[in-house]
Amino acid sequence: MVSKASDSPRMRFVWATFLWQIVIIVLYGKCAEYGPALDPTRSAGVVDNIDKYPMFQDVHVMIFVGFGFLMTFLKKYGYSAVSFNFIISALTVQWAILVSGFWHNAWHNTLDKLIQLDIVSLIKADFAAAAVMISFGAIIGKVSPLQMFVIMIFEVIVLALNESIGVYEFYAVDMGGSMFVHTFGAYFGLAVSWAMTRPAKGAANAARNSSDRNSDMFAMIGTLFLWMFWPSFNGALAPPTQQHRVVINTVLALSASCVAAFFTDAFMRKKRGKFDMVSIQNATLAGGVAVGSSSDLVIGPWGALTIGIAAGVLSVVGYTRIQPYLQRTIGLDDTCGVHNLHGMPGVLGGIAGAISAATSPATKYGQSIAEVFPARGAEDDPAYPDGQGWDAHDQAMNQLYALLTTLAIAIGSGLLVGWGVSKFGKFDEDLWYDDKHMWTHEDFEEEEATAEEGQAMRRNPERVTQNTSI
Amino acid sequence: MVSKASDSPRMRFVWATFLWQIVIIVLYGKCAEYGPALDPTRSAGVVDNIDKYPMFQDVHVMIFVGFGFLMTFLKKYGYSAVSFNFIISALTVQWAILVSGFWHNAWHNTLDKLIQLDIVSLIKADFAAAAVMISFGAIIGKVSPLQMFVIMIFEVIVLALNESIGVYEFYAVDMGGSMFVHTFGAYFGLAVSWAMTRPAKGAANAARNSSDRNSDMFAMIGTLFLWMFWPSFNGALAPPTQQHRVVINTVLALSASCVAAFFTDAFMRKKRGKFDMVSIQNATLAGGVAVGSSSDLVIGPWGALTIGIAAGVLSVVGYTRIQPYLQRTIGLDDTCGVHNLHGMPGVLGGIAGAISAATSPATKYGQSIAEVFPARGAEDDPAYPDGQGWDAHDQAMNQLYALLTTLAIAIGSGLLVGWGVSKFGKFDEDLWYDDKHMWTHEDFEEEEATAEEGQAMRRNPERVTQNTSI
Amino acid sequence: MVSKASDSPRMRFVWATFLWQIVIIVLYGKCAEYGPALDPTRSAGVVDNIDKYPMFQDVHVMIFVGFGFLMTFLKKYGYSAVSFNFIISALTVQWAILVSGFWHNAWHNTLDKLIQLDIVSLIKADFAAAAVMISFGAIIGKVSPLQMFVIMIFEVIVLALNESIGVYEFYAVDMGGSMFVHTFGAYFGLAVSWAMTRPAKGAANAARNSSDRNSDMFAMIGTLFLWMFWPSFNGALAPPTQQHRVVINTVLALSASCVAAFFTDAFMRKKRGKFDMVSIQNATLAGGVAVGSSSDLVIGPWGALTIGIAAGVLSVVGYTRIQPYLQRTIGLDDTCGVHNLHGMPGVLGGIAGAISAATSPATKYGQSIAEVFPARGAEDDPAYPDGQGWDAHDQAMNQLYALLTTLAIAIGSGLLVGWGVSKFGKFDEDLWYDDKHMWTHEDFEEEEATAEEGQAMRRNPERVTQNTSI
Repeated sequence: MVSKASDSPRMRFVWATFLWQIVIIVLYGKCAEYGPALDPTRSAGVVDNIDKYPMFQDVHVMIFVGFGFLMTFLKKYGYSAVSFNFIISALTVQWAILVSGFWHNAWHNTLDKLIQLDIVSLIKADFAAAAVMISFGAIIGKVSPLQMFVIMIFEVIVLALNESIGVYEFYAVDMGGSMFVHTFGAYFGLAVSWAMTRPAKGAANAARNSSDRNSDMFAMIGTLFLWMFWPSFNGALAPPTQQHRVVINTVLALSASCVAAFFTDAFMRKKRGKFDMVSIQNATLAGGVAVGSSSDLVIGPWGALTIGIAAGVLSVVGYTRIQPYLQRTIGLDDTCGVHNLHGMPGVLGGIAGAISAATSPATKYGQSIAEVFPARGAEDDPAYPDGQGWDAHDQAMNQLYALLTTLAIAIGSGLLVGWGVSKFGKFDEDLWYDDKHMWTHEDFEEEEATAEEGQAMRRNPERVTQNTSI
Repeated sequence: MVSKASDSPRMRFVWATFLWQIVIIVLYGKCAEYGPALDPTRSAGVVDNIDKYPMFQDVHVMIFVGFGFLMTFLKKYGYSAVSFNFIISALTVQWAILVSGFWHNAWHNTLDKLIQLDIVSLIKADFAAAAVMISFGAIIGKVSPLQMFVIMIFEVIVLALNESIGVYEFYAVDMGGSMFVHTFGAYFGLAVSWAMTRPAKGAANAARNSSDRNSDMFAMIGTLFLWMFWPSFNGALAPPTQQHRVVINTVLALSASCVAAFFTDAFMRKKRGKFDMVSIQNATLAGGVAVGSSSDLVIGPWGALTIGIAAGVLSVVGYTRIQPYLQRTIGLDDTCGVHNLHGMPGVLGGIAGAISAATSPATKYGQSIAEVFPARGAEDDPAYPDGQGWDAHDQAMNQLYALLTTLAIAIGSGLLVGWGVSKFGKFDEDLWYDDKHMWTHEDFEEEEATAEEGQAMRRNPERVTQNTSI
Repeated sequence: MVSKASDSPRMRFVWATFLWQIVIIVLYGKCAEYGPALDPTRSAGVVDNIDKYPMFQDVHVMIFVGFGFLMTFLKKYGYSAVSFNFIISALTVQWAILVSGFWHNAWHNTLDKLIQLDIVSLIKADFAAAAVMISFGAIIGKVSPLQMFVIMIFEVIVLALNESIGVYEFYAVDMGGSMFVHTFGAYFGLAVSWAMTRPAKGAANAARNSSDRNSDMFAMIGTLFLWMFWPSFNGALAPPTQQHRVVINTVLALSASCVAAFFTDAFMRKKRGKFDMVSIQNATLAGGVAVGSSSDLVIGPWGALTIGIAAGVLSVVGYTRIQPYLQRTIGLDDTCGVHNLHGMPGVLGGIAGAISAATSPATKYGQSIAEVFPARGAEDDPAYPDGQGWDAHDQAMNQLYALLTTLAIAIGSGLLVGWGVSKFGKFDEDLWYDDKHMWTHEDFEEEEATAEEGQAMRRNPERVTQNTSI
């Protein structure tokens, strides 16, 4: 049964998104325009980067099918998992294009110019959606769509700000987003979860917060599309000369984290040698997260494999040991275990990126060291406007600063936003992990009717007995 | 139980498709050849358009996984939905290549030449399969495979004729097929449905004509692949200079129709604020349909968003208000609601295309106005053989003529074909929306056995009681 | 219930894969390096073949989603089917890159050089994974992960050796791998199956070795992604001038085998005119297998259609007649029916390739005959180092030699490997086709508890009766 009280936040979501779409249209009308490659009157010299389209589509599949189905493992929450992933990601794409363009213009003192749209805007927007979906992994099943919507609005702003600081202040490279996407998304989401929901009725929810055969199979669809297309995620924004390295490194790291997830899982579970779907659905992906930062660097095939194995092991240890520990000690609730898949492997990836930067003498990349690390160009070289004359050590230290800044901003802003959204539209814990409070379906209504009848029976057993007597 | 009467149309389908494949091989042997790009003896100057392959594959996924799984929402009809989508689409691809090549040669007075195959033939054939699958959306569950096959043969012919009229007579542009694919497919299918099936036992079928959790989740796979790859559908045949605009406009329109589908749905349903899977599975896609015609035009990012929102709202209103009204008043039965997803948004797209054409001064597109609207080239300019010296108003009016012609031809030919196929191979209404009359599976046989035993019990209760006594 | 005895091979798998990953890292560290296209210090002249990436991704989807979900039709074995496909394919990719590079260097007398990695290494590795997954199709449900792992290690070595013999000794062309992937994989797997498992308790297993509605729908996901992306499989390694032909021929052949699978199936089944999901999930794909060898040749559109129909018919006859016959007479057990989908259509494809080669006069391909058939170049032409001065007849005969060699090596090595792995880690027949012996899940534990209680009841009916008395 749905109480009157829960109708109201639902309708507030309707009005909020309706009004928001009007705001979005006005903002796009006032502030955005087609980029030069889309302008039919453009001169012949403009390069058209539509060749990024196949990788964009792979990333698109990761966001909408990958994350969407990965979260459908909850057996009574599949409609919500895949559908709220759908609408919130669509809202994120609209919003992130504007926000990312705004910060770009702000940092380049070009706020008087319009935001220019092209395929790169869409890829960056999908990256933002990835971060938001990672955050949601920590809280799904426990928050209302209205809360998700509000969290998204703020997260996208802070996410783009954090990336701007990392790129423009620390000149950090983070090709696959180990820091700016995965680490940020995970710790922001965990902070929100901690600030807004520390479940009291754990046992009562556990029955719904679990999988069955079909929900696990649907989740595998999400897993596999994420796993297969991860090289496109890491490589979509790479310059052509680095894209090939990204692909090889990412495929190798993923193959290694897949194998490591299986053997670590079978080793750590109580029934030794048996596998658990949670690790297969999640830890197999950790290699893609961890190799992100250094995927375009010359880490060598063995380096990619090593990062992948480390990430797979770390992730399974997270699921089997660290997550229960954090739940028990500080009451940190993490629905999908994003700390294990995105949080710790993201930090690992940030550190691996710093190590790779520290061990990159200028000669390793030939002429192109400043193409890979812009701040390592000479200060006065006009070809590299971001050149700071850095050496390998400078770059490595700044990679670490970017990682620490990301952690600080993510956790700080997450706590604030989590505290804020806990003040309104809160879901009662009895409504968690359950589709039937958000969806109309005859099956749900029968369930409710049965439940009501059951209650009626308890209240008035005689009458019901008469009804069912022959 | 399957009556003898229903065995016969099944075997007729077997023979029909078997003989048809022989006809197809002969026709390909006599009338088709590899296009110049596939000819190993070609001269060096021939441009190879195989770079369209990634977008073709996206469209391919839309046809076979997208439409296929979108229709699997029927809980007892999943085998048939995805499998008949599969075979009829494969048959359509074979047939549409020939038909499209025939009309092309007929209109260019080159019927003495062979039909030339390349990747564009496959893309056009997939577009035809899209139209056929849209039509089938109105009738699936109610028709036999034999009827589907016959309908397809005729629909492909009329579809290609209608497009030829639109392109060669009205010089209409319709990049994403709002008119020539979606409007045609929807109204043809609705006309067939109206002409052949006006269900009498609605209530009896309703139990089977519904979804359950798993069938809804499978349908979401279809939805998401359609939604993600729609930019490829709208852009697959666009010239390189317009493809980038198609992608941006389509992604924006789809994001808006996704959001609009959610908020309109929660507003329109009886349980206010709750969502219904039907709208999420369908109306989220309406933006892709509606932006089709104008996706390559300079409609501006805000224009794409506006079209998307309008389409999403219109589509949900269709599902919740217009479809029940049409069912009640004129007995129009529309299994998947194609009127709401493809019909009305297609017409909206056609009108939006006309408005965009009307507001396109020559200067907007610089030198390229005749690249976008061929008839707007100067009559004597050899670079634009289709140049008619038209202005924006001429183009807009002809866009509308093409839309009206499409509606007239689709409805007219659909009524005719529907009347024709209602004369043979008709399915008894008791067999609707049910796999077990078309598929062998031990589970179905158990069901049938149980049903037979049930009947036996009613006929001879004593004997059965004896059997079950210990 | 799981006996102690079955715990042990499970833990052996854990240790084996753990140690193997260490071996892999060492081997990659010692023997592998980035190829020239990935080298940041490369000179400008190096061609980057990263443009093969979209087709690689399609092949990747075929391996991990295609084969993975195709095997999920087993209703109680879905977790294992999709997950073991996942890890064994990931292990294959790692291993095949090294093995393929080793044989390549061995045949070119360059064993002193490092193995060079680029996108082509990944595509070839995915092809090896395809062969391994085909072999597993014959044995899944009946073997332990440890056995799969050991089989894979040896199969990859022999597979690459066989291909080297075919390519470097017989100069055979086999663009889509009809012989070197499908025929080899199928007959190797069948030989392993025959050598290690001839089931005794057929009837007892049959209940688990079957599908239900949901498992069939998941299997259709695998089917459709294989079917759609097959042109990429056949074309991924084709030179640009031949890729377009591969795409057209493969799409046509697949459309024909789809139609043929439907009509042949409805004709061959006991309930005439009804369809069976097995044929739809499998025989629809046979056209892709059979057209593989000749997909880049000038077989003409009608030729591609004819091969497709023949393969579809042959495959269904295999499922309905040949497979039961082989089971009955020689006890050959073939879980997924790979003999019907990959074995016989692969041989058909090899023969079709030989016929195409025999009917290819030099003029048919203009200047490029030696681009298609390297051995047909003049012996002293420096542009074609493999030129042997062969004519069409020489080429055709050598195609057949390659086919026969493939059959001999596959069956011989398969028998040997199957005999070897039957000596350890064997699964008791009671554990076949059942996830619950390999996976921890609360639902499985409840099942086990219920089963134990049931046994207790049989042992001590009185006590249990008392418990259940009211």
